[in-house]
Amino acid sequence: MERTEINSLGEFGLIDHLTRNNETRQASTILSVGDDAAVIDTFGKQTVVSTDLLIEGIHFDLMYTPLKHLGYKSVVVNLSDIYAMNAVPTQITISIAFSNRFSVEALDEFYEGVYAACEKYNVDLIGGDTSSSQKGFIISVTALGEVVPDKFVTRKGAQKGDLICVTGFLGGAFLGLTLLEREKKIYLENPGVQPDLENESYIVGRLLKPEAQKEAIQFLQDNDIMPTSMMDVSDGLSSEIIHICRQSQCGAVIYEDKLPIHEDSRMFAYKLELDPTMCALNGGEDYELVFTIKQEDYEKMVLNENISVIGYITEDIEKTKIITKGGNTYDLKAQGWNHSK
Amino acid sequence: MERTEINSLGEFGLIDHLTRNNETRQASTILSVGDDAAVIDTFGKQTVVSTDLLIEGIHFDLMYTPLKHLGYKSVVVNLSDIYAMNAVPTQITISIAFSNRFSVEALDEFYEGVYAACEKYNVDLIGGDTSSSQKGFIISVTALGEVVPDKFVTRKGAQKGDLICVTGFLGGAFLGLTLLEREKKIYLENPGVQPDLENESYIVGRLLKPEAQKEAIQFLQDNDIMPTSMMDVSDGLSSEIIHICRQSQCGAVIYEDKLPIHEDSRMFAYKLELDPTMCALNGGEDYELVFTIKQEDYEKMVLNENISVIGYITEDIEKTKIITKGGNTYDLKAQGWNHSK
Repeated sequence: MERTEINSLGEFGLIDHLTRNNETRQASTILSVGDDAAVIDTFGKQTVVSTDLLIEGIHFDLMYTPLKHLGYKSVVVNLSDIYAMNAVPTQITISIAFSNRFSVEALDEFYEGVYAACEKYNVDLIGGDTSSSQKGFIISVTALGEVVPDKFVTRKGAQKGDLICVTGFLGGAFLGLTLLEREKKIYLENPGVQPDLENESYIVGRLLKPEAQKEAIQFLQDNDIMPTSMMDVSDGLSSEIIHICRQSQCGAVIYEDKLPIHEDSRMFAYKLELDPTMCALNGGEDYELVFTIKQEDYEKMVLNENISVIGYITEDIEKTKIITKGGNTYDLKAQGWNHSK
Repeated sequence: MERTEINSLGEFGLIDHLTRNNETRQASTILSVGDDAAVIDTFGKQTVVSTDLLIEGIHFDLMYTPLKHLGYKSVVVNLSDIYAMNAVPTQITISIAFSNRFSVEALDEFYEGVYAACEKYNVDLIGGDTSSSQKGFIISVTALGEVVPDKFVTRKGAQKGDLICVTGFLGGAFLGLTLLEREKKIYLENPGVQPDLENESYIVGRLLKPEAQKEAIQFLQDNDIMPTSMMDVSDGLSSEIIHICRQSQCGAVIYEDKLPIHEDSRMFAYKLELDPTMCALNGGEDYELVFTIKQEDYEKMVLNENISVIGYITEDIEKTKIITKGGNTYDLKAQGWNHSK
């Protein structure tokens, strides 16, 4: 593969190169990449802003993460935060820092993923920064979105009797990570062995190429459902439900048999002798949405096969419970649940 | 000095700790730190967005940069980009990553500087991210600002006959860096010797605690002056003028004797046998503004003692010249000027 040294382009040349095919899709993008700052016209809407920092060796492992997927995921995890506010993402800025082991071709691959995400989610890349790093690859993304004034949804509004809903499936990304870490270990001990991930493309895809919940937010708007609270599942369902309960000053009960677990995840969990329920509760990085709705919206919600109703909100402040298939009740913990009760 | 391990607080505890005194100053900040994203109401204005990544060992040296100053500067350099659009900064997000050599007290110092800058420039800290790093301290700041619709100023509008103006003084930060790097070298070779910077507080301050040009933008608005192009001086005056000329498809002539150089900078340059003019043209990080105005605004401009008119725009595309005190004409280069002509 060809290798072009980044120094051969210079900083401005590199930025020109990386943004040469950058398209503008949003009417609100008045001025994009190439000046001191970008300019956005929000036409009377409110602006939603979220930011994330992703560090090689902490948030991702380039040994098994293709750069294109990394670019895609870096954007998606930020858009996920915007959707979690009941808003629609419109623009991103992306800054990267890289050591001299990276070539222009490597950065191109990364940006291919960034642009693919921009296209899929209809957002504009409007700015950023490029820099050297002393070690590793560093990514900072800021996403902007728009929301009809005061229609944003925080973590604070859940109330007694509200139903707890979750999009898609849970636990897959954690199982994908477990598989890739296992294969990495085997490879490091025995570099001749090529890892075979063919049969586990579902869980590997969940980790390496997550999607943000654009359709769910569209569904809520189309059906005139205003969640009372919402957040995205990045740390794990238990942790997020505990958050919502703490901020909303309420409790929650969820049912083990309602947790949406993909068949491929369940099978792979069994293979590793892991409990699929524990993976669904505590595995992070699924980038699904967990939200609460008023009971009267239940009839509308069941129309959507991609959304599961998994429990309800109680008035017991910060008491978060799971009722198992066997009928036992345990406290939810940010890491596993506590068998002492 | 006390040392609290960051792990003792946990990630959410750390964020609570660092943002416990966070105040909201802007009416447009509808929702601040603590949810998936922040929400801003722009009340019919346009939003301006800029972002920067600052990496230890590349952009700053903690050996001679107090963390409080670093926090302050990290904010200021971003606000500088917002002012350079003729906009007023309103909000920032700040993300940091740090290795385990940092304590809670160290991060507190950094945030003291961040909050001091927020207060001085009347901006709200509305979000961010904290993370571990494998090595060193990493900072990512995104600044948002507002501007009356279509009153933003880019690098593209300079036209023949326009006057080139610059705020404040140039070259000081570069001389401060030169001094600190020299003292660092002496100290490393001879750790017993304490560096004495007492007499050079001006140039050291220019590097470690720069300010953004809030008053200049206020002056332009108060006096109804709309620059035809503008950018901030982060890479060096020559480089910025070349940029404006390339983007505006014009040329420029500036006069050596009009370059604003502080007396302390001039003295210290002589001491090091450096040419003060070269420091002013090529030293970066001054965070002054360079901009162009129509000739008819000249009478208003001279009322401001903090702004110097240093030259004019020509129609010779990308021809950028300096006329020396001795009457010679040289090409401006991004690094020094070319004596070959």
